[in-house]
Amino acid sequence: MSTANTEQRVALPMTVPAQAITAVPMPEAVTIYEVGPRDGLQNEKAVVPVEVKAEMITRLLDAGLPIIEATSFVHPRWVPQLADAAELMGLLVDRLGDAARRMPVLVPNEKGLDRALELGLEHVAVFGSSTETFAQKNLNRSYDEQFAMFSPTVRRARDAGMDVRGYLSMCFGDPWEGAVEIDAVVRAGVRLLEMGAGQLSLGDTIGVATAGHVQAMVAAFGAAGVGPERIAMHFHDTYGQALANTHAALQVGITTFDASAGGLGGCPYAKSATGNLATEDLLWMLQGLGIETGVDLDAVVATSTFMAGQLGRPSTSAVVRALSGA
Amino acid sequence: MSTANTEQRVALPMTVPAQAITAVPMPEAVTIYEVGPRDGLQNEKAVVPVEVKAEMITRLLDAGLPIIEATSFVHPRWVPQLADAAELMGLLVDRLGDAARRMPVLVPNEKGLDRALELGLEHVAVFGSSTETFAQKNLNRSYDEQFAMFSPTVRRARDAGMDVRGYLSMCFGDPWEGAVEIDAVVRAGVRLLEMGAGQLSLGDTIGVATAGHVQAMVAAFGAAGVGPERIAMHFHDTYGQALANTHAALQVGITTFDASAGGLGGCPYAKSATGNLATEDLLWMLQGLGIETGVDLDAVVATSTFMAGQLGRPSTSAVVRALSGA
Repeated sequence: MSTANTEQRVALPMTVPAQAITAVPMPEAVTIYEVGPRDGLQNEKAVVPVEVKAEMITRLLDAGLPIIEATSFVHPRWVPQLADAAELMGLLVDRLGDAARRMPVLVPNEKGLDRALELGLEHVAVFGSSTETFAQKNLNRSYDEQFAMFSPTVRRARDAGMDVRGYLSMCFGDPWEGAVEIDAVVRAGVRLLEMGAGQLSLGDTIGVATAGHVQAMVAAFGAAGVGPERIAMHFHDTYGQALANTHAALQVGITTFDASAGGLGGCPYAKSATGNLATEDLLWMLQGLGIETGVDLDAVVATSTFMAGQLGRPSTSAVVRALSGA
Repeated sequence: MSTANTEQRVALPMTVPAQAITAVPMPEAVTIYEVGPRDGLQNEKAVVPVEVKAEMITRLLDAGLPIIEATSFVHPRWVPQLADAAELMGLLVDRLGDAARRMPVLVPNEKGLDRALELGLEHVAVFGSSTETFAQKNLNRSYDEQFAMFSPTVRRARDAGMDVRGYLSMCFGDPWEGAVEIDAVVRAGVRLLEMGAGQLSLGDTIGVATAGHVQAMVAAFGAAGVGPERIAMHFHDTYGQALANTHAALQVGITTFDASAGGLGGCPYAKSATGNLATEDLLWMLQGLGIETGVDLDAVVATSTFMAGQLGRPSTSAVVRALSGA
C-alpha cells in the first residue's frame, strides 16, 4: 500500500519538540490490534495459500491476540495477495464460528461490505488518507471523494450493528507532500468519526513520526474533543522509531496499538527493511513495563517463525530474530 | 564482547513498571558518544585495514560527532580486530592532532594506559561488569578483582590529567545470571566514580532493558547521589528497545548516549541482527524532537554506507537502510 523511496521521501523527520505533557499514568492493559494477516500479507511479494493464512490466523487467535484483522475485500486486481478473501473468511467462520465473525475485515466500498454482511461478520474497517495526494494514488479519488465513498459504507455497516474502524494513512508525513499538518489529520479523523467510525487508527505510513509529534497529535485530537480511547496508533518501523513512538503514546493515554506478527509487510520494495511494527517487539516492551495484553509472546514468535518459513525469508522482528538466534 | 543466545538468554524482559516520573523538560542538546570504531569494529567478523579505520574516524569527526572512541589498547589475542590500535592512534594523531588526542580509547589495564600516555591521549575508558559471571567471562577476574585492576589505571590516568570513563556492562540483565538488581549496578557504578571515573556508561549489553527499568535505574542512581549528568546510556537494539529506552532516559535527564555509526557491532554471532544502537537512528529521533547534537545525519549515513561496502554487508541501521533504499 505504502511506498517510500529516495525519490519520494520526506527530507528529514519533521521537528516537533516534546511538550510538557500531562502525566497520565501508564495504562494497566493495552489492546493489540493484529494487522499481520491483512496489512502484512498484502504487502508481501509472495502469495500465501489460503490454508496457510487460516493456520496463521488460528495460531494468532490461540496466542491470545484479541483483535485480528483477517483480510480485505478489495478487488483482486489491486491486491492479488488477498484475492482469496471470501474463501478465507468462509473457511474461518466454518472452523472458528463467532471468533472469526468478530475479526475485522477491510472493506473499501459497499461491494466489500456486502460480502462481509453475507458472511455475518461484525467488524469492518475503511481506509482513508490524510492527504490529497495519497487519496489519489491509493484510492484513485480526491480527498473529498474518499469521504463520499466511505459514507454509505460506514452508515450501512453501523445500521447493521457492525463496529467500524477508520484508518487514516500518512498522518505524520507524506512522501509526496512532505509535512502533514496535525490539524489536517484531526479534521480528517473527525470526519470519519462523525460519519460513524467507532475508532480511528492513525497510520505513520512511511515511518517518519517521532515521539514529540505523536504526543502533539494526541493533544490536538483531545482539543477537538476526541479522547485517546477512540484512537489507535499504527506505527511503522522504517526509521526505527515505532517503539519510541509507542512509549510516547502510552504516556498520553493511547491504549490500542496496531502491530504485525513478525513485522510482516509494510515495505514491499525493500528486501529486509522493516515496515510494520512487529507484534513481538511491542509485546516485549509492554511486558517489560508490566502492561497486560493477554498475549503469549512465545506463541506469537512461533507463528512468525512458521510464517517466515512459508515466505522463505527471515522475520524482520528484532525479538523473533534474537529469540530464534537467527 | 557480549553474546546472547538461546542457551543463555534471560527468559523474558524483566518487568519494571513505569513509575510516576518527575517531569524533567527534555534537554535542548544531547551528546552522542560514538562507539562504532571501537565497540562496533571489535565485534565485526571482518578485520578492517587501518587506513579504512582512519578514514571512518575522520569522516565521523567531520560529520560533527563530538566524541569518538577510536580503539582499544587490549591484547591482540583477545581482540584481533583492534590489533592495530597503536598504529591507528599514531596515524590519527599525526593527521588530526589535538582532535585525535581527545578521542577516548579503551584501556583494559596499566599497560594499555602506558600506550595512551606515550601518545599524549587525553581520554581513556575502563570496562567493568555489573555481574560476577560476566566479570569472570569477559575479564577473567572476579567482580572484586576487576575493581582492583582498574584502580591503579584510573588513578594514574587522573593524575596525568586524563578524563576517565567507566563502562559497566550487563546493567539491565545478564545472560547467565538473569535479572540484575538495580542496587547492584548502583554499587558498582559508585565504586567506579569513587575511584575517579568522571562518567559512567551503563550498558544494556544484551538489549533486554525496557523503558520503566531505565527510568528506575536513573532514579536509583539519583538516590545514591549520582545525577544524570554523570551517566551515559549505552543501549543495544537486540530486542528493538534501544530508542524507546532512549526516549525514557531523556525524560529523566540523561544527555549522553552511546551509539554506533550504522549499528556496527554488538552482535557478532548473528548474521544481521542488530546490536548497538545505530547513531543514525538516534539522530533521527533527536532531530524529530528538536534536540541539538551538532551532527550532520547525511554525513554519518554516507560514512556507514562506505563502511557497509568495506565490510561487505548492509548496515543494520533502519535509517541507513531507508535513506539508501537498501
